[in-house]
Amino acid sequence: MIRFESDYSEGAHQSILDRLIATNNEQTSGYSEDKYCENARKIIRSLCNKPDASVHFFVGGTQTNLTFIASALKPYQGVIAAISGHINTHETGAIEATGHRIITTECSDGKINAQQIENIWQEHWQDPTHEHIVQPAMVYISQPTECGTVYTLSELESISSVCKRNNLLLYVDGARLSYSLVADVLAPDLTDLARLCDAFYIGGTKTGALFGEALVISNPEVARDFRYMIKRQGGLLAKGRLLGLQFEALLSDNLYLQLADHAVKQAMRIRQAFTSAGYELLFDSPTNQQFPILPDEMIERLADNFAFHRWQKMNARFTAVRFCTSWTTPSEHVDQLIRSI
Amino acid sequence: MIRFESDYSEGAHQSILDRLIATNNEQTSGYSEDKYCENARKIIRSLCNKPDASVHFFVGGTQTNLTFIASALKPYQGVIAAISGHINTHETGAIEATGHRIITTECSDGKINAQQIENIWQEHWQDPTHEHIVQPAMVYISQPTECGTVYTLSELESISSVCKRNNLLLYVDGARLSYSLVADVLAPDLTDLARLCDAFYIGGTKTGALFGEALVISNPEVARDFRYMIKRQGGLLAKGRLLGLQFEALLSDNLYLQLADHAVKQAMRIRQAFTSAGYELLFDSPTNQQFPILPDEMIERLADNFAFHRWQKMNARFTAVRFCTSWTTPSEHVDQLIRSI
Amino acid sequence: MIRFESDYSEGAHQSILDRLIATNNEQTSGYSEDKYCENARKIIRSLCNKPDASVHFFVGGTQTNLTFIASALKPYQGVIAAISGHINTHETGAIEATGHRIITTECSDGKINAQQIENIWQEHWQDPTHEHIVQPAMVYISQPTECGTVYTLSELESISSVCKRNNLLLYVDGARLSYSLVADVLAPDLTDLARLCDAFYIGGTKTGALFGEALVISNPEVARDFRYMIKRQGGLLAKGRLLGLQFEALLSDNLYLQLADHAVKQAMRIRQAFTSAGYELLFDSPTNQQFPILPDEMIERLADNFAFHRWQKMNARFTAVRFCTSWTTPSEHVDQLIRSI
Amino acid sequence: MIRFESDYSEGAHQSILDRLIATNNEQTSGYSEDKYCENARKIIRSLCNKPDASVHFFVGGTQTNLTFIASALKPYQGVIAAISGHINTHETGAIEATGHRIITTECSDGKINAQQIENIWQEHWQDPTHEHIVQPAMVYISQPTECGTVYTLSELESISSVCKRNNLLLYVDGARLSYSLVADVLAPDLTDLARLCDAFYIGGTKTGALFGEALVISNPEVARDFRYMIKRQGGLLAKGRLLGLQFEALLSDNLYLQLADHAVKQAMRIRQAFTSAGYELLFDSPTNQQFPILPDEMIERLADNFAFHRWQKMNARFTAVRFCTSWTTPSEHVDQLIRSI
Repeated sequence: MIRFESDYSEGAHQSILDRLIATNNEQTSGYSEDKYCENARKIIRSLCNKPDASVHFFVGGTQTNLTFIASALKPYQGVIAAISGHINTHETGAIEATGHRIITTECSDGKINAQQIENIWQEHWQDPTHEHIVQPAMVYISQPTECGTVYTLSELESISSVCKRNNLLLYVDGARLSYSLVADVLAPDLTDLARLCDAFYIGGTKTGALFGEALVISNPEVARDFRYMIKRQGGLLAKGRLLGLQFEALLSDNLYLQLADHAVKQAMRIRQAFTSAGYELLFDSPTNQQFPILPDEMIERLADNFAFHRWQKMNARFTAVRFCTSWTTPSEHVDQLIRSI
Repeated sequence: MIRFESDYSEGAHQSILDRLIATNNEQTSGYSEDKYCENARKIIRSLCNKPDASVHFFVGGTQTNLTFIASALKPYQGVIAAISGHINTHETGAIEATGHRIITTECSDGKINAQQIENIWQEHWQDPTHEHIVQPAMVYISQPTECGTVYTLSELESISSVCKRNNLLLYVDGARLSYSLVADVLAPDLTDLARLCDAFYIGGTKTGALFGEALVISNPEVARDFRYMIKRQGGLLAKGRLLGLQFEALLSDNLYLQLADHAVKQAMRIRQAFTSAGYELLFDSPTNQQFPILPDEMIERLADNFAFHRWQKMNARFTAVRFCTSWTTPSEHVDQLIRSI
Repeated sequence: MIRFESDYSEGAHQSILDRLIATNNEQTSGYSEDKYCENARKIIRSLCNKPDASVHFFVGGTQTNLTFIASALKPYQGVIAAISGHINTHETGAIEATGHRIITTECSDGKINAQQIENIWQEHWQDPTHEHIVQPAMVYISQPTECGTVYTLSELESISSVCKRNNLLLYVDGARLSYSLVADVLAPDLTDLARLCDAFYIGGTKTGALFGEALVISNPEVARDFRYMIKRQGGLLAKGRLLGLQFEALLSDNLYLQLADHAVKQAMRIRQAFTSAGYELLFDSPTNQQFPILPDEMIERLADNFAFHRWQKMNARFTAVRFCTSWTTPSEHVDQLIRSI
Repeated sequence: MIRFESDYSEGAHQSILDRLIATNNEQTSGYSEDKYCENARKIIRSLCNKPDASVHFFVGGTQTNLTFIASALKPYQGVIAAISGHINTHETGAIEATGHRIITTECSDGKINAQQIENIWQEHWQDPTHEHIVQPAMVYISQPTECGTVYTLSELESISSVCKRNNLLLYVDGARLSYSLVADVLAPDLTDLARLCDAFYIGGTKTGALFGEALVISNPEVARDFRYMIKRQGGLLAKGRLLGLQFEALLSDNLYLQLADHAVKQAMRIRQAFTSAGYELLFDSPTNQQFPILPDEMIERLADNFAFHRWQKMNARFTAVRFCTSWTTPSEHVDQLIRSI
């Protein structure tokens, strides 16, 4: 069975293992107050061109999302998100668990736009009973989205602009951020993200780390006392250096982008194979997730040798599926898949 | 600087690293639904002689505590704990964050007893206004305690008995459980814990894992739908197999106890050195944490070469400090300390 | 200015004031443990033909909703509701504040149906990743709905049946319950509600009480320790007898239905006037709220003398508005309105 | 049975009933946006000499406490309170329900002092692991305390001063505030409270209202968007004018102080009778609660004719009890009690 189910099916890139082994016997302080974390923070601040950014490491994305959102919102405020946003679909109510509503908005491809945000804002404040309604106070977007699509720099600038004008915080879930950075699209880079958002995270788990997400908070107001919040939510790793070490490795020698680039190249081969064979795609994804719409009998046949995700029933005969490549997907696996199409 | 600050200053035991490396390229399902986790669960159930126990893996102790406690209590219920209990002292309100009060009770050495629990229970139910008061519904104890002391089997049996009689859940925080298992005390073993408690966890982080705690839920009622809770609280690790792999390694070939035994032996040497030199101990700890009461000038002198924790000012001239050994503390480090005493 | 804005613009029915005055100097126990509350509970149990129902009094509807829902759900569970449901629109996130998601479903007239509930249930349990998704565990409906529409007995039976089959709790928000009981529709009566739902409340505030909602819990499992929950959420009224006294008054001599009947009769006159004049209605409401779709210039004109609610812009020229009658709406006010149409 | 159990056993002062009746048929806006609430706010601001204070009305004290505390604290912050403070003893965990710890401190008579607060603050910030500990951010005191004792103006000034210096909010629970205002002690008056605290409330329920507490927020930062919070916590009364009307009545013509004065005068008669007869008092209370320490056989005898609260077993033969007078306690009831002593 060849797995195209996810980008976190394997362990970690060798250079990460190497660093863990090399430093294993050292004694360091816990809770991410060690030199490796400090160095990783420095690297990230430099890559983001944001010398005063507050950088925090988490083990996973849900923990990152819930801790940041709970920290930045007041109790009666909610966060605007696409109906397909990860916090709304696959986090078992982790945001609501901290007392906040997700104010969902429709989208066809995972992306929301500045106008939608403006409308939600206007609708709230123009309603004379707005004190009876959850106050929108933050925008959550995923880059790339859960549909593999990517916000362009100009789209992010529009969103950032409407947020700033309306005093909404902007937060970007970067669980797969790497793949947007190498996509063949004019996407925001790290400096753009640090400039345009109040916070975003650089996902490690889905790009070759054992685990780890690096949250970058540009807005100093929401960064205050943030480590208390991490501990309160159970997210402070005792041997925090493991997180620093991994990000040092990923962000050195351009490794992070190389890993992403490999995955996206393999994904483009898959995309090309399906479209050449005449199949349509559910989303126009330039990243490592591809969503061909396939006949059900073909899906059955492919499922004998390949693991992938059934995404959405389209009609009586066709279903959209998801193939996901990773930093370590062997070319030969993709070759085999292409031959089977 | 030689560090006796904590038992989580280093990485992991070599056999754990070896397993991570050996399995690194395998593709497995995420979220602890892989074969390694399944096997680790089997080993734990067998060691606990509890074939139907529900076993779940967490990255850290605070996450384990808050998830279990929030899962088992009804909203208006609280958890009884020693005033020195970890949930009350060093988790930044993680339990309250889930809506529950910690009902604290005094103790001199980290241990509470059956009578204290019975009293809290009686006091609640005899108060005619008890509906206006948080209802005690669970007992939290740490084994060993934060003071290094250990509940004996007979003490745990008494506590368990008062809990069962009064319909209180009993939960044991085993962040350092290994050290109680090898202590020179008639302490409960894993089968006792599984038999006497509703849940307890086997700590990995502080006994040679990179990270990891294995929660064992004996009571099937509180185990229901528990994975939803882990996800909701942000504690479900994507590459969950990392947890399974580590517990497989720790719990094979008696490694877990060997690592603990090493630490306790070194701690006993430290204890012996201090008591021989005429110093008193704040707590009578048979485990890897030792709490000598030292003159302040001696503390200053030791601090030049050794890192340790200042625990409690005793009077104008003396302070109790904590020396903590670990699975990997070199004998020579202890030799050096002993020479300096 | 004649107000058709709401059914809680005035004080209370005279018989309620009379009882408050008559009993004012008596000394009673607090917190609804007095004889008046006990008697009101008896009356309600008898009207519901549910001798073992647990009956609790609240000051307002949001408090009732949040306390019941938070009490009955486990932390990772959510409540299914129409997107127009009061808990989703006008309670400032009170349900999320207790840690729970509202799982919304579309509807055109405030009502959801058994099939929609079944679909949500099926979708959840058929999703292999359901542990990553909020678990649907309760259905919330309003009777009548926020659109004035009414669930018929047979509709409620279908909903109840799908809930029971799927182990979903069924809860009915009865803020305006009285108006459904007198509507010209085969609606469930109190005995039906007590038989088909796990809990519902009989709204007093919007039918002539100063304030007060009576929650009837039929399901003994969710009634356990419920008074702790009321106190925890800040909903236990010190002089609780005020609630008992008001429900005694409302539920004696058929007063509750008489008050509702007056309001609905006046609403039907308004409805008739608008439809006779050729205006359409946004919702087909048989209760005290009427939603004519009117030309904007007519709305401007009416607004000079009448207060009412602008509900929804329909197109460039027409807007749906809401006229709400109450237990005390003077016939002459309706006469004036009719003359102005 | 003559009741000295509480000061909320009866209904309301006649002038309050009169106002309710006089205004019963008027139509007003809901949710405390009516002219009566507006006028009551004006009166309160004037009495407090704080023209820009934000004033909000609640039905009860627990609701007031939880809403204010949850609104003003950040998630990882806690509130310092006497171990005997109402939020810690008789609110069923309402504060923890909003995610916050109560940081308790010992006291013998319900009062805490500036030094205790300073110590908690110092201990927190001097602890190098403070990020692992709930951050103290507010001080909660009750005036008078649950023991009937009263903070003097100079004590409150000291507390306020330590709070301001350490950036702690100061909040005063005034459930029985009236009784402190008339006590024979140099207690802070309303202008002092508004000047020295960030917020306090003027209790109505226990001084002759049917219900109602008026929260006065002096600190504009914590007042922002506060009505959202009230609604979120279920505390916004539909017919909010009922609250305004009652405070208008209480605060006109000095009625509030007159009612309190009557209660305190009766309490002083009780106190005098017990001390003259040689009994000691548990607390030196100058307010409407008196705590004589009585022989158990005397308690049994008194209990035949009088209802009062058994407060605390002192030893094998003596128990402290509580007698509570109210705005409407008949002199003859006190006469009878005195004769029975």
